[in-house]
Amino acid sequence: MKKLINNPNDIVSEMVDGIVSSYPSYVKKLNDLPVIVRANKKVNKVALISGGGSGHEPAHAGYVGYGMLDAAVCGEVFTSPSADKVYEAIKATDANKGVLLIIKNYSGDVMNFDMASEMASNENIEVKKVVVDDDIAVENSTYSIGRRGIAGTIFVHKILGAAAEKGYSLNDLETLGNRLVKRIKTLGMSLYSCYVPTSGKHSFQLKEDEIEIGVGIHGEPGTHKEKIKSVNEYVDFILDKLLSELDNKEKEDVAVLVNGLGSTTLMELFIIGNRVQSVLKNKNVKVYDTNVGNYMTSLDMAGFSITLVKLDKELKELLDYKADTIAFKKG
Amino acid sequence: MKKLINNPNDIVSEMVDGIVSSYPSYVKKLNDLPVIVRANKKVNKVALISGGGSGHEPAHAGYVGYGMLDAAVCGEVFTSPSADKVYEAIKATDANKGVLLIIKNYSGDVMNFDMASEMASNENIEVKKVVVDDDIAVENSTYSIGRRGIAGTIFVHKILGAAAEKGYSLNDLETLGNRLVKRIKTLGMSLYSCYVPTSGKHSFQLKEDEIEIGVGIHGEPGTHKEKIKSVNEYVDFILDKLLSELDNKEKEDVAVLVNGLGSTTLMELFIIGNRVQSVLKNKNVKVYDTNVGNYMTSLDMAGFSITLVKLDKELKELLDYKADTIAFKKG
Repeated sequence: MKKLINNPNDIVSEMVDGIVSSYPSYVKKLNDLPVIVRANKKVNKVALISGGGSGHEPAHAGYVGYGMLDAAVCGEVFTSPSADKVYEAIKATDANKGVLLIIKNYSGDVMNFDMASEMASNENIEVKKVVVDDDIAVENSTYSIGRRGIAGTIFVHKILGAAAEKGYSLNDLETLGNRLVKRIKTLGMSLYSCYVPTSGKHSFQLKEDEIEIGVGIHGEPGTHKEKIKSVNEYVDFILDKLLSELDNKEKEDVAVLVNGLGSTTLMELFIIGNRVQSVLKNKNVKVYDTNVGNYMTSLDMAGFSITLVKLDKELKELLDYKADTIAFKKG
Repeated sequence: MKKLINNPNDIVSEMVDGIVSSYPSYVKKLNDLPVIVRANKKVNKVALISGGGSGHEPAHAGYVGYGMLDAAVCGEVFTSPSADKVYEAIKATDANKGVLLIIKNYSGDVMNFDMASEMASNENIEVKKVVVDDDIAVENSTYSIGRRGIAGTIFVHKILGAAAEKGYSLNDLETLGNRLVKRIKTLGMSLYSCYVPTSGKHSFQLKEDEIEIGVGIHGEPGTHKEKIKSVNEYVDFILDKLLSELDNKEKEDVAVLVNGLGSTTLMELFIIGNRVQSVLKNKNVKVYDTNVGNYMTSLDMAGFSITLVKLDKELKELLDYKADTIAFKKG
């Protein structure tokens, strides 16, 4: 597989340097670490930090900035960053109001972010965490105990990021985060697995008439394979599953994310978006806000996920709040 | 090739419906046409219209909104929209201050937009045009007399869009547009050609160790094939060509666009961005503004282009001006 790279061992470091040199008004690198912080490093509020393995761009570095994250810690491709890097991010962004870690639920990430949190406690920095587990595909996976965290994580960055700017305390952010995470459900599928440049291999194989339902974002397989059908059939299937998990008896409005997994064209994502809006309308589910694009990718996987979030008044206000980052702008 | 579609004949209409139903606060469809206009259709200023064949998403529908376009006319995949659709867009957006057409230089587009312009003149609507020909790869092509218009067109949308909001007259916009177009230079390359869902074929073939330099955005071939090398070598080659064409004796600052052609990951684009910034710094070219992402695609082509724009004071102010569209937000 041809790729636009130099040495496979340098892709993360060159990418990090590319992000900060292309967008110096938004972000900078913390010392010589693969840690991306805001151009104005410390802000007088609770600091929000996320991260994890690379290969999910624009997540998470693209969401560092006003109204979202204060730092993103970048591991190697599909590999958790080590605890000491997370710890450096905590020390650099803490403004004596505490730090909230937003962790996608993978055993490696949870372990390293927890360890960093302990290191910070020893320095009297207060650290709390919110673990995102929006993927309804599987109950446990190769990489996680419990459900995985995938594209719905963007809503946690956006909504908690707004709350932090508005002055919420660390405890209130933790409470809000745990409340929010329960309201986010995501499910994806793929046509082709991703090519991992560091190993020089595709993560799994699909035949030319096969697709995979319930894929994660690290090239891990999903729940089952199917013969390829019209995309509307997948959208219908995914929305049925999501709505059933969402259990929206209160008839609350929802936010929608149609997320591309890497090499899916925007044309295809909008064809999916068209079906999503039409199905939700027919089911009398009111859509408050929609985003369509590549928000949480899995290298060059061809496929998509749909996320639904149940919104109340507080969540709507926070979703509408100004954000100004490389990959997400609002207001 | 597996794709996330329903019927290949419906992809443009479903995509257009997906755009307007996903982003109703930004855009709506004009009557039942594949023409996307702002949610508030007429604005008291010169109207800016662009468009062309589909397959370049987010161009051009993603740039309809405050500070950029007033309408995007969507043809079938890689096919110019017919004159009557452009004419409807002109009638719908003209606020008695005239209409400026931003046309990428392809014979079909120029012909149809010109014909629409004539139809509008008969109705006493004043219409002018700016033809974008930023691609330095070839002097003529399969589809154009003269150089082709490609990713640099985004800067025309952005800068003229800002000028129109600020109240520039139609004549002044035409003058500014012609001045600006001469300052925009783009060159691209690809690893794989694109798969055209309507024909069920790839647009050209490359071997597993071959790449193509100077590709256009309609799957047409470029200037020559080469053996695959490290991506930095392509960046160096492209920047050399661009800087030579730009002829920047005045040492003016430049704006940079690193544009993905469809299925290229953001990770690869940032690796490219890293080299771009480092080379320009070494050559003492001052970068005023950079964007990295998928701005003007060629379906799922794997590849990229780099655009450089020479900026003066007026152009910088207009580039910095607020924009609020689906795919481009500023300020």
